[in-house]
Amino acid sequence: MITPKTLSGFRDRLPREAMAKGAVLDKLASVFRSFGFVPIETPHLEYASILTQEAGDIQKEIYRFKDHGKREVGLRFDQTLPLARFVAQHHHTLGLPFKRYAIGNVFRGERAQKGRYREFTQCDFDFIGSASLLCDSEIIQVIIASLKALGLEEFSVWINHRKILNGLCRHFGVHAKEDIRALLRVVDKLSKIGQEGVLLELKTLFPNLDFTDFLRIVNTKQNGDPIEFFKDVAYLKTFDTTLKEGLEELERLFDLLLCLEINPEHFKVDFSIARGLGYYTGIVYETTLNSLATLGSVCSGGRYDNLSKSFSAQNFPGVGASIGLDRLLVGLEELELVESKSTSARVLVVCMDAKDFAYASQVAQKFRQSDVNAELYPEIEKLKKPFSYANHKGHEFVVVLGEEEVRTRSLTLKNMTTGVQVNHLSFLKALAMVSE
Amino acid sequence: MITPKTLSGFRDRLPREAMAKGAVLDKLASVFRSFGFVPIETPHLEYASILTQEAGDIQKEIYRFKDHGKREVGLRFDQTLPLARFVAQHHHTLGLPFKRYAIGNVFRGERAQKGRYREFTQCDFDFIGSASLLCDSEIIQVIIASLKALGLEEFSVWINHRKILNGLCRHFGVHAKEDIRALLRVVDKLSKIGQEGVLLELKTLFPNLDFTDFLRIVNTKQNGDPIEFFKDVAYLKTFDTTLKEGLEELERLFDLLLCLEINPEHFKVDFSIARGLGYYTGIVYETTLNSLATLGSVCSGGRYDNLSKSFSAQNFPGVGASIGLDRLLVGLEELELVESKSTSARVLVVCMDAKDFAYASQVAQKFRQSDVNAELYPEIEKLKKPFSYANHKGHEFVVVLGEEEVRTRSLTLKNMTTGVQVNHLSFLKALAMVSE
Repeated sequence: MITPKTLSGFRDRLPREAMAKGAVLDKLASVFRSFGFVPIETPHLEYASILTQEAGDIQKEIYRFKDHGKREVGLRFDQTLPLARFVAQHHHTLGLPFKRYAIGNVFRGERAQKGRYREFTQCDFDFIGSASLLCDSEIIQVIIASLKALGLEEFSVWINHRKILNGLCRHFGVHAKEDIRALLRVVDKLSKIGQEGVLLELKTLFPNLDFTDFLRIVNTKQNGDPIEFFKDVAYLKTFDTTLKEGLEELERLFDLLLCLEINPEHFKVDFSIARGLGYYTGIVYETTLNSLATLGSVCSGGRYDNLSKSFSAQNFPGVGASIGLDRLLVGLEELELVESKSTSARVLVVCMDAKDFAYASQVAQKFRQSDVNAELYPEIEKLKKPFSYANHKGHEFVVVLGEEEVRTRSLTLKNMTTGVQVNHLSFLKALAMVSE
Repeated sequence: MITPKTLSGFRDRLPREAMAKGAVLDKLASVFRSFGFVPIETPHLEYASILTQEAGDIQKEIYRFKDHGKREVGLRFDQTLPLARFVAQHHHTLGLPFKRYAIGNVFRGERAQKGRYREFTQCDFDFIGSASLLCDSEIIQVIIASLKALGLEEFSVWINHRKILNGLCRHFGVHAKEDIRALLRVVDKLSKIGQEGVLLELKTLFPNLDFTDFLRIVNTKQNGDPIEFFKDVAYLKTFDTTLKEGLEELERLFDLLLCLEINPEHFKVDFSIARGLGYYTGIVYETTLNSLATLGSVCSGGRYDNLSKSFSAQNFPGVGASIGLDRLLVGLEELELVESKSTSARVLVVCMDAKDFAYASQVAQKFRQSDVNAELYPEIEKLKKPFSYANHKGHEFVVVLGEEEVRTRSLTLKNMTTGVQVNHLSFLKALAMVSE
C-alpha cells in the first residue's frame, strides 16, 4: 500500500479553495481584458539555458533534469523569462506593442516553510514594445482595478524609480554596477531586517562609507498629498542627474494617474522599493494590503527595457507586474472576501426509489435547462443522508421526489437556508421559488 | 545569444489560440458546474511511486527525476492517478459522493509527431463514491452537453461494457486475466490496424484459437433504433453470464438516457470500444465527431471501481471521462467553431500628441467604466500605424483624439467593419454607437 500524500511544499486544493481561486481568477482576467491584455500560454518545461538567464539567487532553486532525449530542461520559476523567450521568438507574428497576461504555475525548490509553496500561481500582465510612460501608468491602473474588482478597498501601490536609487547610491559614493546591485539587495531587506540590520550589513560591504543619510532618504515614504511630497523632495534633484531624471519621470507618472478617477490613496511614492531581480531598469512597485502589512507584497513589478537581450539583437522595452495569487488568496481569506462554498449546484435532487431515477433525471435536467445548476443524488438512502450531504456542501435547495410526487409529476422543495418546505409543487412553481 | 525556442513536442499558444482555448474552457466548466461538479487542483509534480501505479505502457513516458531533496518525483501524465491519491487522502473532508472536475496539463515523453504534444491539456470530470448507474448516465450526459455547448451537433458517444468484452473473450476460449488484457489491447488497435491486422496479431498470441466470429461480434456497432439493436444482440446473453450482466446494464443505461431530452443519435453501442487502460471495470466509451472520424476520440472514459486500491483499504467506486482538449480544439478549428480574435478590446483609443495622453487615458477609462473593453495605443505615430495595428488585432472601433477633439472634449469614432467614421462625437453618443 502506498501512502497517499503530496510532496513536501506541494498541495492539493479542495473544492472550496479551488472554487474561491477560480472566482478570483475570473475577476482578474476580466480586468486584464478590459484594458486589452490578451492571454498567452508557454510550456511549464523549457530548455534550462533559457531559465538560467538573469535567474540570480533563484538559479539553485530551479527544478532541472535531463529529459528522454538527454536535453537539459527545467520547470519555469516565473513567467517573465518565458515571456522574454516568447517575444523574441514570435514578435513578427504578434505585432508590437503587445500586451499579454498569463495565469500559470511556477516552481521553486525553496526551503519549505509555512505559507510558502514550491509550486504556486502567478498572474502576470505585461506591456511589451513601448517605452511610453502611458504603459507604466496603465500597469498601475490594472493593479488598482484588479484589487478593487476583488472587493479590496484599503491597499497601496508603493512606487519608486530605479534611477532614483541608482542616483542616490552614486551620490553617497557607490558607483560600480555590481556594488550598486549589492547595495540594493541589502536595501531590499529593509522590511525584513530593519534599519539597523541594513546598516550593519552595509558596514561589512562598504567599511569606508557612511549610509546614515542615505538610509534616511531611502526610508522616505509619501504620506499625504503627492504634489506637496514632490515639492518636499525636489532638493534631491541637485544630487545627481540620473536621480533627477527618475524623480521627474515619477512626477509625470503621478500627473497621468491623478487625472483619472482613481483614489489617490491607492498609489504612493516609497524610495525604499528596490525589487531584487536584476532586470528592472525604471519605475518599480510593490503592493500591500493596509491592514495586512506583514503579508508582504501581493503584486510587484516594474519596467525592464532589456529583457529579451539574451535572445535577440532587437530591443523590446517592457513593463509589467505579477500578482502572487496564493498570497493574495491568504489576504482575501483573512479579510473574508472569498466565496466559501463546496458545491457548484444550487439544487440537490433526491429520489426515494431506484425505479424513479428516470423522473429524477428529468427534473434535474429541467432545472439545468432553466439555468439553475442542479445535482442529482445518486443513491437511494434514508433522507437524513442526502440532507446532511446538502448541508455539508452548501446546496441552497433540496428537491425530494417521493412516491406521491412521482405519481403526480410534482416535487417537494426545501429551502435549506430558511428551513421552509413546500410539498407537491409543479416544476414551474418550484422554479419560481428557486429563482426568487 | 540563446536561440529562443520551445522544447521539441512543446509549444506556445499565441493570443488567438489562447483566447479560443479559454472560451472553450469557460463553456466546459460551466456545463460541469451545471451538473454539480466542483473543481479541484492537484500538483503537477507527484511522488513517482504514485504515478507508476497502473501506468501500463505509459510508464516509460513519464518525466521522472530526483528533486532537491533526492526524492524520486514525476510530472503527472494524466489526472486520474492523482485523483485516486487525492480521494484516498481527503475523502473524510470531502464527503462522498464526490463529483470533481479538473482542467490541467499533463506530460508524456512520447515520440514527437505531428499533432501530438508532450504537454497537453485534459478536462476530466469524475463521479466518485457511488456505484449507481445514474452516475454512468450522468457522465455521458455531461459529455453530450459539453460538446453541444461548443456548438457541435454531429457527434457520437460510442458505448460498451467491459463485462461484454470479458464475457466474449471467455466464450471464445480466453480465460486468464492477463490473456484477456492482452487480447483487448490488440482489439483496441482495431481502428488503427484494421480487422486483418488484428487477426494477424491474435494468431501470434493465441495460435490455437480462431477469432473470426469473435471479431465479427466485436465489430458490431449500433446503427439505428437502440431498442431494435438490443433485441438483435439479445442472443449473446446465452454465451456467458458476465456478458449477460454487462449487456443488461447497458440496456438499463439506455433506458435512463432515452427518457431525457437528448438526441438519441448522440449515444450508440459499439462492442469494439475497449479502452487500453487497465483500471476500467464497467461501462466504457469514446466520442467521435462524425465528419472528423480520423481525428480519433475527443472524450473517453468509463467506470473504474478499484481505482484507489493502491492507496487505501477502502473501496471508492468511480466513473468519469476526460476531454482531450488539444484534439478537440483541432476539431473545432476544422469545423470553424472557434473564435478567431487577437484582441480582448473592442475599442482602440489613439492620441495624436503626447500632451494629450491624460485625456486619452480618461476616454479609455470611461469606456471601461461603461463595460466596453478599451485599449489605449501607447505611442504617438502617424495614424496609419495604429489603424494597421487595429486591423491586425481585430478591434471593432478606433477612437481618434486629435487637436480639435481634445479642445472640445469630443472624439472621432471609426467603425472598422463598415469603415464609417463620425467626427467630434460626445462620449455618450460614441458609447451609444459602440453599444448598438
